Amino acid sequence: MKRRLKFAFIIILLVNISMLQAQKKPNIIVFMVDDMGWQDTSYPFDSALSAYNKIYSTPNMQKLAKMGVAFTNAYSTPVCTPSRVSLLTGMNVLQHQVTNWTSPFKDAPTGQKDKQFAEPKWNHNGLSPVPGIPHTAYATPISQILKDNGYFTIHAGKAHWASSGTPGSNPYSLGFIVNIAGTSTGRPASFLGKENFGRNTADYHGVENMQEYFGKDIYLTEALTLEALKALDYPVKNKLPFFLNLGHYALHDPLMADNRYYEKYLAQGLSKNEAKYASMIEGMDKSLGDILAYLEKHAIIDNTHIIFISDNGGLSLTPPRDGEPHTHNAPLRSGKGSIYEGGIRVPLIIKGTKGNVKGKRIDTPVIIEDIFPTILDMSKVRYSALPQKIDGRSAMGYLDGKTKNDTDSRPLFFHTPNKWTQNDGDGFNYKSAVRKGFFKLIYNWRQDSYELYHLIDDIGEKNNLIAVKEVQSIATELKEILHTRIKSSSSPVPSKTVEK
Amino acid sequence: MKRRLKFAFIIILLVNISMLQAQKKPNIIVFMVDDMGWQDTSYPFDSALSAYNKIYSTPNMQKLAKMGVAFTNAYSTPVCTPSRVSLLTGMNVLQHQVTNWTSPFKDAPTGQKDKQFAEPKWNHNGLSPVPGIPHTAYATPISQILKDNGYFTIHAGKAHWASSGTPGSNPYSLGFIVNIAGTSTGRPASFLGKENFGRNTADYHGVENMQEYFGKDIYLTEALTLEALKALDYPVKNKLPFFLNLGHYALHDPLMADNRYYEKYLAQGLSKNEAKYASMIEGMDKSLGDILAYLEKHAIIDNTHIIFISDNGGLSLTPPRDGEPHTHNAPLRSGKGSIYEGGIRVPLIIKGTKGNVKGKRIDTPVIIEDIFPTILDMSKVRYSALPQKIDGRSAMGYLDGKTKNDTDSRPLFFHTPNKWTQNDGDGFNYKSAVRKGFFKLIYNWRQDSYELYHLIDDIGEKNNLIAVKEVQSIATELKEILHTRIKSSSSPVPSKTVEK
Repeated sequence: MKRRLKFAFIIILLVNISMLQAQKKPNIIVFMVDDMGWQDTSYPFDSALSAYNKIYSTPNMQKLAKMGVAFTNAYSTPVCTPSRVSLLTGMNVLQHQVTNWTSPFKDAPTGQKDKQFAEPKWNHNGLSPVPGIPHTAYATPISQILKDNGYFTIHAGKAHWASSGTPGSNPYSLGFIVNIAGTSTGRPASFLGKENFGRNTADYHGVENMQEYFGKDIYLTEALTLEALKALDYPVKNKLPFFLNLGHYALHDPLMADNRYYEKYLAQGLSKNEAKYASMIEGMDKSLGDILAYLEKHAIIDNTHIIFISDNGGLSLTPPRDGEPHTHNAPLRSGKGSIYEGGIRVPLIIKGTKGNVKGKRIDTPVIIEDIFPTILDMSKVRYSALPQKIDGRSAMGYLDGKTKNDTDSRPLFFHTPNKWTQNDGDGFNYKSAVRKGFFKLIYNWRQDSYELYHLIDDIGEKNNLIAVKEVQSIATELKEILHTRIKSSSSPVPSKTVEK
Repeated sequence: MKRRLKFAFIIILLVNISMLQAQKKPNIIVFMVDDMGWQDTSYPFDSALSAYNKIYSTPNMQKLAKMGVAFTNAYSTPVCTPSRVSLLTGMNVLQHQVTNWTSPFKDAPTGQKDKQFAEPKWNHNGLSPVPGIPHTAYATPISQILKDNGYFTIHAGKAHWASSGTPGSNPYSLGFIVNIAGTSTGRPASFLGKENFGRNTADYHGVENMQEYFGKDIYLTEALTLEALKALDYPVKNKLPFFLNLGHYALHDPLMADNRYYEKYLAQGLSKNEAKYASMIEGMDKSLGDILAYLEKHAIIDNTHIIFISDNGGLSLTPPRDGEPHTHNAPLRSGKGSIYEGGIRVPLIIKGTKGNVKGKRIDTPVIIEDIFPTILDMSKVRYSALPQKIDGRSAMGYLDGKTKNDTDSRPLFFHTPNKWTQNDGDGFNYKSAVRKGFFKLIYNWRQDSYELYHLIDDIGEKNNLIAVKEVQSIATELKEILHTRIKSSSSPVPSKTVEK
């Protein structure tokens, strides 16, 4: 009898261990907002509540920040596709060389014509999960690694990782089991169900997979959320760990009113376009709230990581925005497309699982390619050989409290050898930069000139220190770091030679 | 020691039983071809090899027939959506009352204008998985039942179960975990990758989720097959039972050459359009071959049921077909849209799992709503309450050899109170019919007249027996059966009153 009990005990123990292991595999959600600026929230990422923080309403982001860690010095790249490729692959823009947004159709570099420079030889077809596709960055996406390790992987919303005619344009070829509305396009033809999201027009940006909502008074953000939650039902019911990449098309233009919130902002005195923009923000935040409520309802919130991030700074061109251009991310300078902080500094909040750090703020600079190794750490998946080198560094240490908040000495690189918009404006086109510690050095390829800013003393990058004697050693060091890295990466740089 | 061994034995036994149960759950594939006629194959469903059987090349269908059971008297409805709704719900057209094809956009009945009859009050918005949607048939689809019971459910290709603006237009709301290219449309804008499947045009029929293949020399049938096989990887790797509903857009018009096979048929002397059609058939058969090869490669073919079926008879209107109209399904009369055999008799082959019947032909009449209970039997899933009554009868008995091949006495019903095409032509518009045993009675609502055919002696329905004395009792019986069933179903019938 004793022996039998002992034997039974061992069996029960083994069963329990395997059950615990099964439970331990956490779920992971990336909640990616398009074109959301650092100030497009009621949660202050700056040290003080800004004017914009007082305008916008994002209670669920505030809630999320209380549940996890808010990164106040988080970076993406200045535009969409480069950031999305970095997130999915762990590569810095200098490595993947998808340095601008990708066209919906392949072999169509998106740069503007320029008198001084030719279109550089960048990977204008985007990311590819297989080698040998011309003008693509070959890499294994995190979604594929997670799928290969038993994760149920879902993409919903904007994809925009590659141009059509290549495998990277297809979420089903990037390791996603479910794809909802993900294509090679970077914006919707319309956000409105009443307009069928523009799908029944000649505009190629009509949103796919959204027929159920045609003709209805529903905003795309809401429809995508409903579909994403529907897709979660199978893994949740069958206790499969899941990875949800929810990429909202909001806040990308066309700016269109989310009628649930629009009137409120008009009443607050905002102009029409700004009220539209504010309503899109609140609709996005409502989606986040719905995700949180779903996780709470199914009692899986303690076992689910959430990464909230934007792919670049808030759009600050007028039109489509109203008001003074380049001011919509104030106190940051400029906006989407710019190498200034308004173009690259983004909201980032990461909520961990049970036992992780809560309600903390981290000032250490982090960058979007860090998300890849962070997710790997979260999933505890071991991977062997990858085609790409991982430039990112896991932020998991901040969540489990092992890594300290400090100024950090890691250099973060930004690189735009492209002409994104017609006018160089406020930090657009042909710029590279490195941030290290408090300082940021910007290189202007057109003028072969530099700018240097102390971001703690001068978050608005108004005070160019490049000629200041006391910081010459820092300027020299950063110039060296930046050019060495650009050179070693073999990344394209602006060039007069017409390349083919 | 003895006791411990005994205990260990019990544990091992329990583990083995559960493993066996896990293995026992078979996979199920519905391979649905659009507008494929009874003769559009080199496999003879008739008792002799026909002229058409000699033209077309479908070696994989021949292979499939050897692996399972070929049904020589299998029926769908005359057009697309009614058949698809019947398959997914187990309901006869008289019950679901989706009596015609559904428009891509809701609240737009598709009937032609007529001087005698108004548009009937049919469920012109199609199938709905939830109650309360106007003009829909509320039912729980087999895909939902399978998903709820642990099946990994995939839809690829043509869906066309409902109009946009309703949940039935969204495969994700019909119990499918994966959706590839399934929308409210019933045909593609183009079959050609080179033409981006028409997706970048104003034609709403541009195919969704196919960007990877844009610009490539690939036919839609091939691209859908590649995507469907990609979707199978997750359930196969993770040993989840799967349900794949592969609904090819082929052979629907627009007739477009599949260049892998087109020249061959031209060389055989076929006209251009007929060579295109033949090439589409062979491309479809190649897809079937690829599916079989995948199942063999992964050693799951013995545990996978395959149901090969078409949604209606082959199109026999000229144009788009060449030659004499209403002859393309000969020896059957007429084609798609018609109540004659050419419009409703379809190829049906069902391959069972290990131990099931192989290489047998069944002449007993069966109908598309039988697929629903057949799949339920295959999956061994028990369901409780369903909103719909199941009209179909499982064909599983033919696969396990328990049910005998006989003429059967079950009446099968067909009902078209709609005007599908401009001319009543050869069996189109405002017709109902019942087949029972050897006989088929057709009721012509416009003329209030009947036709009666003996389908064994007269498969071409050339010899109307309605006035023949010897069969008056049969005519009377069939009239009674047909009208009683129509009446009890409360199905719409042609009416002069304008209905709203």
